[in-house]
Amino acid sequence: MDIKAAVNSLEDKLKKYRRDFHKYPEPGWLEFRTSSKIASVLMKLGYEVKVGHEVVKKEAAMGRPGDEVIAKNVERAVKEGADPEILKRMDGLTGVLGIMDTGRPGPTLAYRFDIDAVEVDEAREHNHRPYKEGFSSEHPGVMHACGHDGHAAVGLGLAEVLTRLKDELHGEVKLIFQPAEEGVRGARAMVQAGVVDDVDYFLALHIGFGKSGGIGIVTRSAGFFATSKLDVEYRGRASHAGAAPQEGKNALLAAATVALNLHAIAPHSDGATRVNVGALMAGTGRNVICDRAVIKLETRGATTALNDYVKKKALKIIEAGAAMYDLDYTIHEVGCAMSAEGDEELASMIKSIGRELGVEHIIDEGSMGGSEDATYFMEKVRSRGGKALYYQVITPIAADHHSSRFDFDERGLSLAVVLHAEMAKKLLNPSN
Amino acid sequence: MDIKAAVNSLEDKLKKYRRDFHKYPEPGWLEFRTSSKIASVLMKLGYEVKVGHEVVKKEAAMGRPGDEVIAKNVERAVKEGADPEILKRMDGLTGVLGIMDTGRPGPTLAYRFDIDAVEVDEAREHNHRPYKEGFSSEHPGVMHACGHDGHAAVGLGLAEVLTRLKDELHGEVKLIFQPAEEGVRGARAMVQAGVVDDVDYFLALHIGFGKSGGIGIVTRSAGFFATSKLDVEYRGRASHAGAAPQEGKNALLAAATVALNLHAIAPHSDGATRVNVGALMAGTGRNVICDRAVIKLETRGATTALNDYVKKKALKIIEAGAAMYDLDYTIHEVGCAMSAEGDEELASMIKSIGRELGVEHIIDEGSMGGSEDATYFMEKVRSRGGKALYYQVITPIAADHHSSRFDFDERGLSLAVVLHAEMAKKLLNPSN
Amino acid sequence: MDIKAAVNSLEDKLKKYRRDFHKYPEPGWLEFRTSSKIASVLMKLGYEVKVGHEVVKKEAAMGRPGDEVIAKNVERAVKEGADPEILKRMDGLTGVLGIMDTGRPGPTLAYRFDIDAVEVDEAREHNHRPYKEGFSSEHPGVMHACGHDGHAAVGLGLAEVLTRLKDELHGEVKLIFQPAEEGVRGARAMVQAGVVDDVDYFLALHIGFGKSGGIGIVTRSAGFFATSKLDVEYRGRASHAGAAPQEGKNALLAAATVALNLHAIAPHSDGATRVNVGALMAGTGRNVICDRAVIKLETRGATTALNDYVKKKALKIIEAGAAMYDLDYTIHEVGCAMSAEGDEELASMIKSIGRELGVEHIIDEGSMGGSEDATYFMEKVRSRGGKALYYQVITPIAADHHSSRFDFDERGLSLAVVLHAEMAKKLLNPSN
Amino acid sequence: MDIKAAVNSLEDKLKKYRRDFHKYPEPGWLEFRTSSKIASVLMKLGYEVKVGHEVVKKEAAMGRPGDEVIAKNVERAVKEGADPEILKRMDGLTGVLGIMDTGRPGPTLAYRFDIDAVEVDEAREHNHRPYKEGFSSEHPGVMHACGHDGHAAVGLGLAEVLTRLKDELHGEVKLIFQPAEEGVRGARAMVQAGVVDDVDYFLALHIGFGKSGGIGIVTRSAGFFATSKLDVEYRGRASHAGAAPQEGKNALLAAATVALNLHAIAPHSDGATRVNVGALMAGTGRNVICDRAVIKLETRGATTALNDYVKKKALKIIEAGAAMYDLDYTIHEVGCAMSAEGDEELASMIKSIGRELGVEHIIDEGSMGGSEDATYFMEKVRSRGGKALYYQVITPIAADHHSSRFDFDERGLSLAVVLHAEMAKKLLNPSN
Repeated sequence: MDIKAAVNSLEDKLKKYRRDFHKYPEPGWLEFRTSSKIASVLMKLGYEVKVGHEVVKKEAAMGRPGDEVIAKNVERAVKEGADPEILKRMDGLTGVLGIMDTGRPGPTLAYRFDIDAVEVDEAREHNHRPYKEGFSSEHPGVMHACGHDGHAAVGLGLAEVLTRLKDELHGEVKLIFQPAEEGVRGARAMVQAGVVDDVDYFLALHIGFGKSGGIGIVTRSAGFFATSKLDVEYRGRASHAGAAPQEGKNALLAAATVALNLHAIAPHSDGATRVNVGALMAGTGRNVICDRAVIKLETRGATTALNDYVKKKALKIIEAGAAMYDLDYTIHEVGCAMSAEGDEELASMIKSIGRELGVEHIIDEGSMGGSEDATYFMEKVRSRGGKALYYQVITPIAADHHSSRFDFDERGLSLAVVLHAEMAKKLLNPSN
Repeated sequence: MDIKAAVNSLEDKLKKYRRDFHKYPEPGWLEFRTSSKIASVLMKLGYEVKVGHEVVKKEAAMGRPGDEVIAKNVERAVKEGADPEILKRMDGLTGVLGIMDTGRPGPTLAYRFDIDAVEVDEAREHNHRPYKEGFSSEHPGVMHACGHDGHAAVGLGLAEVLTRLKDELHGEVKLIFQPAEEGVRGARAMVQAGVVDDVDYFLALHIGFGKSGGIGIVTRSAGFFATSKLDVEYRGRASHAGAAPQEGKNALLAAATVALNLHAIAPHSDGATRVNVGALMAGTGRNVICDRAVIKLETRGATTALNDYVKKKALKIIEAGAAMYDLDYTIHEVGCAMSAEGDEELASMIKSIGRELGVEHIIDEGSMGGSEDATYFMEKVRSRGGKALYYQVITPIAADHHSSRFDFDERGLSLAVVLHAEMAKKLLNPSN
Repeated sequence: MDIKAAVNSLEDKLKKYRRDFHKYPEPGWLEFRTSSKIASVLMKLGYEVKVGHEVVKKEAAMGRPGDEVIAKNVERAVKEGADPEILKRMDGLTGVLGIMDTGRPGPTLAYRFDIDAVEVDEAREHNHRPYKEGFSSEHPGVMHACGHDGHAAVGLGLAEVLTRLKDELHGEVKLIFQPAEEGVRGARAMVQAGVVDDVDYFLALHIGFGKSGGIGIVTRSAGFFATSKLDVEYRGRASHAGAAPQEGKNALLAAATVALNLHAIAPHSDGATRVNVGALMAGTGRNVICDRAVIKLETRGATTALNDYVKKKALKIIEAGAAMYDLDYTIHEVGCAMSAEGDEELASMIKSIGRELGVEHIIDEGSMGGSEDATYFMEKVRSRGGKALYYQVITPIAADHHSSRFDFDERGLSLAVVLHAEMAKKLLNPSN
Repeated sequence: MDIKAAVNSLEDKLKKYRRDFHKYPEPGWLEFRTSSKIASVLMKLGYEVKVGHEVVKKEAAMGRPGDEVIAKNVERAVKEGADPEILKRMDGLTGVLGIMDTGRPGPTLAYRFDIDAVEVDEAREHNHRPYKEGFSSEHPGVMHACGHDGHAAVGLGLAEVLTRLKDELHGEVKLIFQPAEEGVRGARAMVQAGVVDDVDYFLALHIGFGKSGGIGIVTRSAGFFATSKLDVEYRGRASHAGAAPQEGKNALLAAATVALNLHAIAPHSDGATRVNVGALMAGTGRNVICDRAVIKLETRGATTALNDYVKKKALKIIEAGAAMYDLDYTIHEVGCAMSAEGDEELASMIKSIGRELGVEHIIDEGSMGGSEDATYFMEKVRSRGGKALYYQVITPIAADHHSSRFDFDERGLSLAVVLHAEMAKKLLNPSN
C-alpha cells in the first residue's frame, strides 16, 4: 500500500480532528470529551477499545483533581458532545487504548499520543490563526499550546491508515492515548495498569519546534531530564503578630528557609541537575503569624540517579524545615518522569524513511531540554528487551510552545502519520 | 434629663440596629449599605449629614479596592436596601459624619464609631446565636466578628439620645462613622479631610473583651502599637526551570530572602517592636522560574518612633532584595496607625460615671495589644490642644474577637450609649 | 569607728592595689596571680581563706580553657609574683573566699567582687593615663576595661576596714572574689560550691559609668537580662567544591541558615527578648565544601522565663539546621545568668548612707542593660529568705566600659569601700 | 642523543631535588628558598636566568601576603640556604625563568612547572615514607601535598637533559617556574609580565593520580573549570547585643544571607557551573552585634563564559547583601583561571612517544575536575597562533592529592623528564 498517498487523502480529516480538539482543550485528568471522541472513532474503525479505569491505575494517577471537579467536568463534556455511555465506562478516569490484532503471530508495536492541554489563556487576536479561523479555545484559561491536539489527531489518522495496511502486517498494534502528560503525571499510571507489558516496540513523537521554517525530523530525542514534582504543605499555628507573636508556629518562615536551601543543593559532578521552587503560597492575614504554607517544587537530573540525588537532599531539607519551626507537614509526589535514551536502530529507520520521503531537514539527535513521562513507557519496554524511540516532527510554529499564541503548521500532521505508519510496515512485516 | 432611662427605652432599637448591620456586613471601603442606613437615620434625627467623599480624602484612602469592585458593591448595596440618592452623594467612598450644633457657644465634642466588618466566614452552627436567631451574615466570607456592628448601633442610639439632651448642651457634637478600621486604613483619610480640625474633645470606644462574664469598663486603653502595613510586589523574569534556568530573575527567592531578613530586624532597647510577613504569594508554574512575588507585611512599635525604626530597616531590606535578584518592585503603604495615650482626666470622668452607674468591673488601664487608627484622630486633636480618650466597654463574648463564632452580650450596647451621653453632658455643659 | 576616716587613710593602698591588678590583667578562669595576691592579703589580715577548687565547683565552671592553657598560665602567674603554695591549693581553679567570724551570733553578710579582665588590647597612647603613668597592661590583648581591677581593690580595702570594725559587729562576713564574670561563667560554679548557702544579706556593686562628671550612686541596679551563652559546633564532610560537590555535607550553609533563623525568633508579648549570633567561623579552604562551623550565640530575656522561651526555640533551630545538612553537632552552654531584682529595703539603706555622706548624685534605680551573674548569688540568697542588692558607684570614666581607653577616677574606690562598710555596720549591728 | 639513557643517569639527582623541595615547602608567593635553589642550578647549567619581579608583574599578583610576611620569609629562606644575592634580585617576588637560546632560528618552546606547596600539616607517622625516610616537611602547616616538589625537580632534570640535547635543537627553550598555582594566583602575573609573549609551543604537566598502581600517561587533560576566587569583606557597626541592638549594622547576618543566595545561583543550560563559599569568618564577641565578616568564595564554569555568568550574579548578590545591612564592603579577586582545551596534535605526539617508551597505561583524555592557571599561559599562546598542551604523568600515590599523607612513586619523575625532552626533540628539530 502506498502510505503517503493514503495519508494525503486524510489531510482534511487530520485538520478537522486537530481543530476540534483545539477548540475544546481539557487539562490533565479532565480529558473526558477528548477521550470519548477518540474512543468513538477507534470503535468505528474496528479497534478493540479500552478506556479510563481499564487502562489507568487510579492509585498511581498523580496530581488528579478531586471528585467534585471530576464530576463537573464529566457533566461539561456531555454538554460538549461526549458519549455518556463511554464516559460511564471510563469511571472518572481519562485515557484510551486501541488494539488491533492482525491475527498473525508477530511482535507488538505501541504508539503513544498525549492528549491533555495546558493551563494557558489563548490569545484572542486577529493575527492568531485559531482565533481568526474560529477554532480557538472555548475554555478560558485552557489551551492546546503544546501540540497535543495534533498528537491526538495523528493518532486517529494513524488508526485509519493502519486499518488499510492491516493485511500487510503481523503481530499487534496498540494505540495509547495518554492523559496528563503536562506535569508528567499520567504515564506511570498507564504503565502500572500493564498497558505496555507485552510491547516489543514503542514509538512516541512530538510535533512543533520549527522556528526557522521548513518541515523536518529529529530522528532521536535525547536529554530528557528525570524529574520529580512535589507539593509540600506546612501546617503550624496562627497567632496575633502584635499581641502574641510567641504563640505562633511560623509556616511562612519555614517555607522561605526551605526554598532558599533547596535552591542551594550542591550540583553533581556526574551531570546536570536542577531544582526549582516554582510556587510558594503562605499566609493570609498580614497581622497573623502564618500557619500554613504550600510550596510546589520539582527536581531534575540528567539521569534518574542524578534526580534521585537531588530528590533525596530535597526531602531532607523539607523535613528539617518543618522541625525548625515545629510544624506538621505533608509531601505529595504529583508527577515524575525518568531519563531515557532512544534506540539508535529505530532512529536510523526513521532517518531512512525520512530520506526516502525527501524530508528537507533531518537532524540525528536533539535535546528536549525538559522532562517527558513517555520515558516511563520507554524504560518499561526496554526493561523487557524491547526497543523504544522518541522522535520529533519539526513543523513551523507561530510562537513558543506553552505561549498564548502558539499554533503550528498542519503539514506536520501528515508527515507524522506517514512516519509512524511506515515504521509499522517495517517492524511488523517479517519480510522487511 | 435622665440618660439611663432614655437609653433603656432605646434598648430594642439598639439591638435591631446591631442585628441589621450584623446581617449585612461589609468590609473596609465597601460599607455602602451601612453608610446609607446610618446617614438616613441621622437625617431623620435632624443632624447635618456629610457622606463619602465629603468626609474622606480619596488620595489618603489606603488599601481601597479597584473601581470594578466598588461599582459591584454599590450595586449590591442598592439591592440590599441602600438609598441610591445617598450612594450617589458618597461618590464611591464610604463613611458618614453627623453634626449637631446646639446653637450655643461651646467646645466641640467628637465621637468615633468604626463600621467595617472582617473577612471571616461566619459559623453556621446552631449554638452560634446569630445563626440560631436568624441574623448571621448574608455575605459569605465577611462577618462582623469584631463588634463594629455594635459600634455603629451605639452611634445611632447616641445620636437619638443627644437630640433629647440637646437643650442642656453647649457647643457642637460630631458623630464620626469611620470606614476601614480593619487594616488601619480609614482614619488617616478622614483626618486629612479635616473632620476633626475643630474638635476639642474626642472619644472612641470598643465593645467586647468579656471572657469571664459581667459588664465592665476599662477607663483608658493603652498600648496601641504604631504600625505600618506594606504590600510589596517583586517583578522578575520567568524562564523554563529545566531548559534555561539562567534566563530567570527569581522573584520567589528574593521574597524568601527578604521575609527571613525582615523577621531578623534587631529589637530596640527603647521598647517593643514587631515585624510580620503575614503573607507571601509567589509563582504559579512549578517548572517556571518565578517572576512575580507579593509579600504583605506589617511593622509595629510601642511608639511611633519605634515603628519608624523598624519600617526604615524594612524598606532597606526590601529594596536590597530586589537588587540581589535584579528585580523591579513596588511598595504600597496600605495602612498605618500611630501610638497614642488617652487623657487621664477624661478617663477619671468615665470612671466616676461608671461608679455612679454601679458598674461592677472598672479597670483603670488596659492594653489593647494591637493597633487602632483612632490614634490618628487622637493625635490630631491633641496636637491642637484638645483631649482624647479611647476606652473599652466590657461585655461577655461567645468567642475571641475575629473568630467565626464571635458574638457579644448586647447589654454592652446600652452601657456604651449611656457612658458616651453622660460625657456629653459633662463636657458640653458649662455648669458642670 | 569612723569608717570614712578609716577609708581615707587607705586611699593610697586602694590605688596601689588597683594599679597592680590593672598591670597584670587575667581573663576569666586564668586569674591565678590575682587570686594569689588577694588570698595573701586576706591571710595577713587574719581571714579564714579558701581558694580555687575549695570555692568553685569544677563541673559547673562554664567556658573554662583546656588544661594546657591552664598550666601555661599558672606558670606565668608564678613568674609574675604569685605564691606557688597558694596556686597549688587552688588546683587549677581561680577565685577566693575570705571569711571573718565575729564570734558573736548574728546574720551572715556576703560581698561579691568580680576579678577577671576583658579581652581588649589596651591603648598605648600618652593621653591614656594607665599608659602614661606606667600601669597599663603587661598582657597584650587582655585589659581591665570593665573596672574589675577596682572591684578587687575595693574588696581588699573593705577587708582591712572590717577588721578594724570587727568588734562592733555580730555574725559573719564573707568576701567573695569571683572569677569569670565576663561571659557570665563563674558565679554558678561558686553558688553550686555552696559559697552563699548560709548567707542572709548579699551585696555587689559595679564601679564606673560616670560620663558627665561627678561622683554618685545608683542605689539599686535593675534590668538584668537572664541569659544563656551557647557554643555550637557543626561537623559535616569536606569535599572538593569543583570535582565532587555532591560528596560534601556543608556545615557553612547550615550555620548561615541557623544564624538567620535564630535572629528571626519571634519576640514575646511579656517583655524584651534578645538573640545574638556574635560569631560564626566556618571553613578554611575556598575550594572545599566546608565541613566544620562554629557559632557563638547568646539568648536573653527580661525574665528568666523569657530567656527560657528564646533558648528553647534556639535549640530547636540549631538541631534542625544540623538535620537539614545531615551534620553532627554539639552544643555547649558556656555561660548563663538569671534576671534578678534588688531588695528595696537594702537600697533605701544605701540611699540614706549616701545622703549622710553628702554624695552629689543619688539615683534610685538604673538599668544595667546587660547581664550579670551576680544574679545567681542573688537568687540563691533570696530563695532562702535572704536579701540581696546590686548597686552602682558612679565615678568619672575616660571612655566606655570595654573600650581600649577605659579608665576610671579612683575616687570611686573610697566611696565604694565606705558604702560597703557602712552596710556591715547597719546589718551586723543589732543595735541599729 | 638517547634521552632515556640520559634521564636514567639523572635518576638519583631527580630524587634528591624532589626530597629537598619536599623538606622545605613554601606556600604561594613565599617560594624564596625554592626559587633561589632553582635559579642557582639553572645558572650553573648556563641558562639565562630571570627571577622574581623580572618575570612576575607585581600589580597582577593575586592573593599575595603583606610586606611583613614577605620580609619574614625572605629571612627564613636565607637561614635555610637561599642565596641572598638572588633573593635581592627577586625583590620580594618569587618565580624563575630559564632561557636557552640554541643560536639557530626556530620556534620557541616553553615548559611550565609550578613550585608552591599547600597549607596542609604533613603526617608524622612511620608508615608515611617522607617522615620515615627523613624528608618530611620542616614547616608546620605547609606541605608539598600536590606534587609540585616533583614538578620543580622535573624542571631541573629537564634543564640538564636539554643542555646535552642543545646541539640537536633549533629555536629557543623557556623553562617557567611559576609561583602560587594553588589558589590559581600566579600564572596571570607571569603572563602579564610577558613571559610567553614569544612562545609557539607550550607544555605543562601534572604528576600523580595513580590510585590503582602502574605508570601511565593522560595525553590530554581537559575539563579545566574557568574560575574566579574572591575575598569579600563586610564592615558594619558593632553594638551591645543586649543594651543597644538597634545601633548595630550586622555584618554576620549579611554574610549568612549572601552565602545562602550565592549557593542558590541558578545553574546554566550550557554546561556545568559551581559556586562555593569555602569560608565565612564573622564576629568575635558573643554579646556584640557583629561588625565585620569575611567570606572566601570561588565561582567556576566549564567555560570562561559560564564562569563569567556565575561571577556576575555573585557580584550582584554580594553588593545587595551590603545594601541590605547598610554595610561598607570590599571585594578582592585573589585568583582566577580560564578554561582551556589542549591541542590534539601535541597530544598525539605525546601518545606516540609514550607508546615507543612502552608505557603501560595511555589514556587519551582525562578530566582534571578542578581549575589550573596554566590555562592563562595556554590561552595566551593560542591567541597568537601557538599550540598548547597540558598532560598528566600517572604514578602511584600513597593518598589523595592535598591530603596529609600524600606521597608519590618517584619513578614518575623520570618519565616526565623523558616525555618533555622528547617533545623538544620533535618540536625544535626541523628534520622531524
